[in-house]
Amino acid sequence: MTDVARLKTELDGIRIEDNPAIVKQKSRDFFWYSPVLKRELDHVTADLVASPADEGEVVRVLEVCHALGVPVTPRGSGTGNYGQAMPLSGGVVLSLAEMNAIGAISAGRVVAGPGAILAEIDRRTRADSRQEIRLHPSTYNTASIGGFIAGGSAGVGSINWGGLRDLGNVLGLRVVTMEAHPRVLELGGRDLQKVMHAYGTNGIITEVEMPLDVAWDWVDVVVGFDAWMDAVRFGDLIGNQDGLLVKEIAPVAAPVPYDYFLRHRKFLRRDQSVVLLMVAPHALDPFLTLAGREKGAILYRSDSATEAEKKGLPPLFELTWNHTTLRGLRVDPSITYLQSLHPFPDHVDSVRRLSEIFGDEVPGHLEFVRFDGKVACFGLPIVRFTGERRLDEIIVIFEDNGCPIFNPHRYTLEEGGMKQTDAVQLAFKREADPDGLLNPGKMIGWENPDFDLSAGKVYLFPGLQSD
Amino acid sequence: MTDVARLKTELDGIRIEDNPAIVKQKSRDFFWYSPVLKRELDHVTADLVASPADEGEVVRVLEVCHALGVPVTPRGSGTGNYGQAMPLSGGVVLSLAEMNAIGAISAGRVVAGPGAILAEIDRRTRADSRQEIRLHPSTYNTASIGGFIAGGSAGVGSINWGGLRDLGNVLGLRVVTMEAHPRVLELGGRDLQKVMHAYGTNGIITEVEMPLDVAWDWVDVVVGFDAWMDAVRFGDLIGNQDGLLVKEIAPVAAPVPYDYFLRHRKFLRRDQSVVLLMVAPHALDPFLTLAGREKGAILYRSDSATEAEKKGLPPLFELTWNHTTLRGLRVDPSITYLQSLHPFPDHVDSVRRLSEIFGDEVPGHLEFVRFDGKVACFGLPIVRFTGERRLDEIIVIFEDNGCPIFNPHRYTLEEGGMKQTDAVQLAFKREADPDGLLNPGKMIGWENPDFDLSAGKVYLFPGLQSD
Repeated sequence: MTDVARLKTELDGIRIEDNPAIVKQKSRDFFWYSPVLKRELDHVTADLVASPADEGEVVRVLEVCHALGVPVTPRGSGTGNYGQAMPLSGGVVLSLAEMNAIGAISAGRVVAGPGAILAEIDRRTRADSRQEIRLHPSTYNTASIGGFIAGGSAGVGSINWGGLRDLGNVLGLRVVTMEAHPRVLELGGRDLQKVMHAYGTNGIITEVEMPLDVAWDWVDVVVGFDAWMDAVRFGDLIGNQDGLLVKEIAPVAAPVPYDYFLRHRKFLRRDQSVVLLMVAPHALDPFLTLAGREKGAILYRSDSATEAEKKGLPPLFELTWNHTTLRGLRVDPSITYLQSLHPFPDHVDSVRRLSEIFGDEVPGHLEFVRFDGKVACFGLPIVRFTGERRLDEIIVIFEDNGCPIFNPHRYTLEEGGMKQTDAVQLAFKREADPDGLLNPGKMIGWENPDFDLSAGKVYLFPGLQSD
Repeated sequence: MTDVARLKTELDGIRIEDNPAIVKQKSRDFFWYSPVLKRELDHVTADLVASPADEGEVVRVLEVCHALGVPVTPRGSGTGNYGQAMPLSGGVVLSLAEMNAIGAISAGRVVAGPGAILAEIDRRTRADSRQEIRLHPSTYNTASIGGFIAGGSAGVGSINWGGLRDLGNVLGLRVVTMEAHPRVLELGGRDLQKVMHAYGTNGIITEVEMPLDVAWDWVDVVVGFDAWMDAVRFGDLIGNQDGLLVKEIAPVAAPVPYDYFLRHRKFLRRDQSVVLLMVAPHALDPFLTLAGREKGAILYRSDSATEAEKKGLPPLFELTWNHTTLRGLRVDPSITYLQSLHPFPDHVDSVRRLSEIFGDEVPGHLEFVRFDGKVACFGLPIVRFTGERRLDEIIVIFEDNGCPIFNPHRYTLEEGGMKQTDAVQLAFKREADPDGLLNPGKMIGWENPDFDLSAGKVYLFPGLQSD
């Protein structure tokens, strides 16, 4: 058990929260998207939350916790949905939200604290020099840049830039190690892989440098199709148009748009599948030319919608990526979801096959992205949840159809998508967190090197707080 | 024969040149790159050159020439190398060089006259709002935007944006028809295809609207490899890195770089193949990381070269695309070249096969591009010319290996690359140039609809001026 009183004494001067209700609230992320994680993790809570104001205070927290053997789980805004920020063994939640300064902005670059909110970074870089971050999750208005790097992988913009871990999409990170005398490391180039998408298991990010792209006044467009596969093919066609600048392409199958996108319902028919897009203003005319040729119905355009029509509408990206699921859960809490990849060049055909197999049990939701230089798509389908056994069957059928699942019903790095332990991240954890105190329970390769990932069994972290 | 005296009278007030030496000079483009075109077209000349100052004067020239039955061949800066601007039947060369005004610049858009030089447009858009044209040929400093659209197809920037004819890469064109009463048409969307890469055979471009991208301070980088195929694979690797922003990737096989890039020779070994790149400043660190991993030798970087090293060096793009050939011709006028496509996904392998077949008879030069959403490459290989028969054999071997040739030794649209008559362009010519007076001899589908393009015979335009 954590000696909370002693911890508080040692951390004197650093902002601490130990009100159990608030600590529990700050120990939660969006794990509850998953009925499986909800069952497993609902009781999890830290002992206290520490909110350092700067890197020096991060070093002090880690030094103290290392000396006392207290686990530390970092947290940005807690918008992850794989339980990334859940403190499985209690201890300290290290909230980096206060470290949200936005530093130097120059051509193609911005420096920021890990707690800086993505939308806030863009407000500053837009005002400074009409630039914006390349990639963002649908939680743009609440997610932190550090949390996105530590716990995210792709998002809006991935149709142009691929994933966050692709070389060039993060320029530099400062990272503090969990040792008797914590070190501050500056990582760049391929070394960035050591801590990206590692859930903070092997270092605490204290500063980021991100590349910037030009900020266009993206136009939200909803295109309707009578047939789901026509929507899918349209998404693929647009993604492969080299001269057409778009930032987001998300086909969503009927009846999901009508049933769950309540504020946009007035533009939709229940039997219509849609493609949600963000189009550069100067790409709009050629885009509409193509949409017309493909018999897509333009259901909504933010540039020509009236003020009355736009009133109360969220930006379109808040209907995409994990927000599609979120809107579904608000209407029907019994649903759940999956995350998969439909690899090139079979991506359109694997979507078709799986749609034929599952029909309305698994309504399609795709996100077109660049992946290793080709246009392919992630699947984030809604699943009409009828139990964990059936969910596992669905996963097997996806994988049998060549579509790997990044299982959002597992809290470990390996089961959540990596499929195997990242050797670089494991090696770096040995250096940077030799006592295994950072975000315990998330890296199977550290906790139990003998665990057989191919045996199909679920890893249960022995250090998980008991109910 | 053209009644030059009458023509001059009718065109009174419009700038005319009829000094035969100057007219002949203004009747030539870079057709002489090809020993075949040089033999066929060297004698070609117009009767006079008309240089309208504005669209109204273009209308007048076309009206007069239509009434007199005089052929009109439009010309930008004459930097094409397929004989695009050669007036095969004499008549008037319509020089659009004076119509070079640069108009409205806004986010993502610029309006310009057809004669505006690409580099000059960029100087203006950079100064205005740090923007630049998406694509340019290696003749950036001399080529006109109208000529690029009418006679070009791809260039620097195609690794990001594909080809000029890809939807979205030209936003609008004003075009004047060749009729008794010339009409001024505004084309957009898919209608642009009617006149793009039509060599001015079916309308005269009098204004263009182009999309703009952010202007980075591109860094020239030369990477050396001992083995040609390592250079090719490196180019392909970089082209497929979704997060790495580059504008140009051109592998060139030894000994071409050392033998022909004389001003860069000091950085090169004769047995080294190179990759020529333009890299965004904020992509340089991750780029160098990857180059190091792939054992590429960094032979030159414009950002760290000394002033002494940089003295007299041309920008790197003036070593790429058709400038590679140009530099070769300056050193060894006996060489020639080809233009081909290495289609995805076999592109690297078809390069390897053809390199093994031809060795130093056809030293490789590739330009990586996006093509239908995938990274592939054009080939612009040097050919050690030993006669037209062998050149034709080489073409057959390329095509037998799945690599279509855009034959730069033919002056017609069809033989030069389209392989078949573009039905849209032919239909538009019927509307816009019913008497066939615009750039005669370049569209076989108009001149001789019965000509069998698949029979392997060379089309000889009967209207070609005799020697």
